[in-house]
Amino acid sequence: MKTKLFRIRENLEDLARFNSTSGKGLTRFSLTPEDRGARDYLAGQLRQLNVEVFEDAAASLIGRREGTDPSLPPIMIGSHFDSVRNGGIFDGQAGVIAALEILRCLEENNIRTAHPIEMIAMIEEEGGRFKSGVLASRAMALGLTLEELERHKDEDGISIAEAMSSFGFDPSRIAEARRKPGEVRVFLELHIEQGPVLEKEGVELGIVSSIVGTDLMRVNIQGRPDHAGTTPMDMRRDALKTAAAVISEIPLLAIEQGNGTVATVGTLTVRPGAPNIVPSEVEFTVDTRSLNVSSITAVKNRIIENLEKTSRVDGTTFSLEQLLQVDPVEMDEEIRRILQDHANALGFSWRSISSGAGHDAMIMAPVFPTAMVFVPSKGGRSHCPEEWTDYEDIQKGVELLYHTVIAMDRR
Amino acid sequence: MKTKLFRIRENLEDLARFNSTSGKGLTRFSLTPEDRGARDYLAGQLRQLNVEVFEDAAASLIGRREGTDPSLPPIMIGSHFDSVRNGGIFDGQAGVIAALEILRCLEENNIRTAHPIEMIAMIEEEGGRFKSGVLASRAMALGLTLEELERHKDEDGISIAEAMSSFGFDPSRIAEARRKPGEVRVFLELHIEQGPVLEKEGVELGIVSSIVGTDLMRVNIQGRPDHAGTTPMDMRRDALKTAAAVISEIPLLAIEQGNGTVATVGTLTVRPGAPNIVPSEVEFTVDTRSLNVSSITAVKNRIIENLEKTSRVDGTTFSLEQLLQVDPVEMDEEIRRILQDHANALGFSWRSISSGAGHDAMIMAPVFPTAMVFVPSKGGRSHCPEEWTDYEDIQKGVELLYHTVIAMDRR
Repeated sequence: MKTKLFRIRENLEDLARFNSTSGKGLTRFSLTPEDRGARDYLAGQLRQLNVEVFEDAAASLIGRREGTDPSLPPIMIGSHFDSVRNGGIFDGQAGVIAALEILRCLEENNIRTAHPIEMIAMIEEEGGRFKSGVLASRAMALGLTLEELERHKDEDGISIAEAMSSFGFDPSRIAEARRKPGEVRVFLELHIEQGPVLEKEGVELGIVSSIVGTDLMRVNIQGRPDHAGTTPMDMRRDALKTAAAVISEIPLLAIEQGNGTVATVGTLTVRPGAPNIVPSEVEFTVDTRSLNVSSITAVKNRIIENLEKTSRVDGTTFSLEQLLQVDPVEMDEEIRRILQDHANALGFSWRSISSGAGHDAMIMAPVFPTAMVFVPSKGGRSHCPEEWTDYEDIQKGVELLYHTVIAMDRR
Repeated sequence: MKTKLFRIRENLEDLARFNSTSGKGLTRFSLTPEDRGARDYLAGQLRQLNVEVFEDAAASLIGRREGTDPSLPPIMIGSHFDSVRNGGIFDGQAGVIAALEILRCLEENNIRTAHPIEMIAMIEEEGGRFKSGVLASRAMALGLTLEELERHKDEDGISIAEAMSSFGFDPSRIAEARRKPGEVRVFLELHIEQGPVLEKEGVELGIVSSIVGTDLMRVNIQGRPDHAGTTPMDMRRDALKTAAAVISEIPLLAIEQGNGTVATVGTLTVRPGAPNIVPSEVEFTVDTRSLNVSSITAVKNRIIENLEKTSRVDGTTFSLEQLLQVDPVEMDEEIRRILQDHANALGFSWRSISSGAGHDAMIMAPVFPTAMVFVPSKGGRSHCPEEWTDYEDIQKGVELLYHTVIAMDRR
């Protein structure tokens, strides 16, 4: 193989050191000291190559290797380098290191491409810090406004805009991160599967056919804070009573839709939050995903119906805030075919697979030709310290992408 | 009347200033700067009287006016001066200021009592900071150990023992706060009703007949953190799914028992707490109260049954921790009769009332003759910024207690 296993392994192990929860999985929130450490490490790796190293207006780190034809847009390869809290060392990171290794191999093998080749390392894909995921890819494919960067805040009340400023970025220039259709020839992302399919079937690589649509909303329920001892059950306006009734139905609503539709309540906060006070406010998120928009809509509508019905009975009120809404997307037909042909030529076993996780590729796909390669996840585990992919398996994905980049360049 | 309205009002208004959430109700957690301010204020008020001012080993502030017969145990009057988060300015505070006013009136009217009269201002009744309520009265009536003070911690991980040390107390001497049966002649507590009965019936005073039993337990549910997009609904171990199903049934279980039985889930925490991760751990409290022990037991047993059933289906596990368990208690028959006779003599309307809220009196009653007087709460509201009792209504309660103290002393 052209790509080198030891470098991929070393890079991923090195990168894993920039971590705020050592011993408890990887936690690297965006625009933190851990981000700074990882960013400097990646920039240092890029500077050993004959590439231009810079950051775009959305804080993405980019390494650009010029092509021979200045009129051509770049072939872009990459992923994100932030993590969830107490996550694993492969989610996102594997795709960034894949891109780095591809740049190195082009250099080593003296391959002059017509297109520029860009490696990109993006922030806040997970939304771990600011609850505003796929941030950098949204800035690139859709465009963001300063107002959005000011609205989303972390737990300490620091907005994305403030965090960017403290990192030396000018958030008022966020629009400059946007690239128009045609300004990226293709976006390629390697990622761990985060599910059990490849491992279970003993298949080496997944060539992603489509990515589920994701709907993330925040539900806020308002009740009244009453004394837990003196307020009769029938005189309460208990926000948690409403929330619990609605939340306990959500899994059934997803199962009813079938076709792999999933719905998750991952966060919930109770206020004022004392054992002897009836909850006056409950806030929770609902993350619904499906390959069919209609299934997402159906689940959401049923949740809203349940909220209306239950809050009426409980004397509570509720409001909804849409945090993210992304339609299911198909990966580019042409690139998938190239990936399949090269996988066959390289002798890797592969299958088409749909992605249940959202990715930066999901945001890029409606605007730029986009494709993804999955490598197997042990036990399907992800977003946890146990997340694991063998380095040999990652290398196969990198090798496939390397050959695909060269083939794409020649088309 | 012997008692003075303007002093009661001024003391309560002054005391309300020691508050960490100005503009959002009263928050005064125990052994904080706000506690220090209120404690110093009360000590300053006591020092203007001919009383001994000291603190016991459980951080209670005591003002002791000696009696003429050194062989007699004290008549003790008081309540707590901590508050819930964002609570009102009367809960607890009214009973402390009542005791202060009674000491002042004894002085002003040159009344020599045979018994010493002690005013007591107790900490951590609400359990707001350390989730370990009625702390000072437990130390006095039941005795506490250093281990218990070390076990309970606030949100920053500071134990009661550490907080006491930083306030100049020696937590290893906590056993010295205990008083044996016979060492307190009677404990009298004035408190706001925190319920709607007195106001609704237009009755001036409540003479408490009994206090509900309280059972506070913490439920911990363990699941598995999985990716919210890639993990099929039937492969999850969602701790919040189990919790929501169990919690949504709890109000019905309390209503089934009737007789004013109430059950409340007032706190709930989800871990890891990210929109895109299936909850691996949920922790919540269940506060169950009733005048019948059997009703509390029945509600608890049904909750545990539901936890067993639901966790089995969901592939989760759970554990329980008992935080507080207090049986229903009757107030002292003899003192209630004295209170009733004096209420009649003073021309106050009154009724017997049971308390749905727990109080320090609930802890004292099994060990010392104990009685409580309730004053009306506007709209029955409590544990919220809207909590209100007219100062004129408080004064009536203080006046009744003043005459009762003198009568008790002569028996």
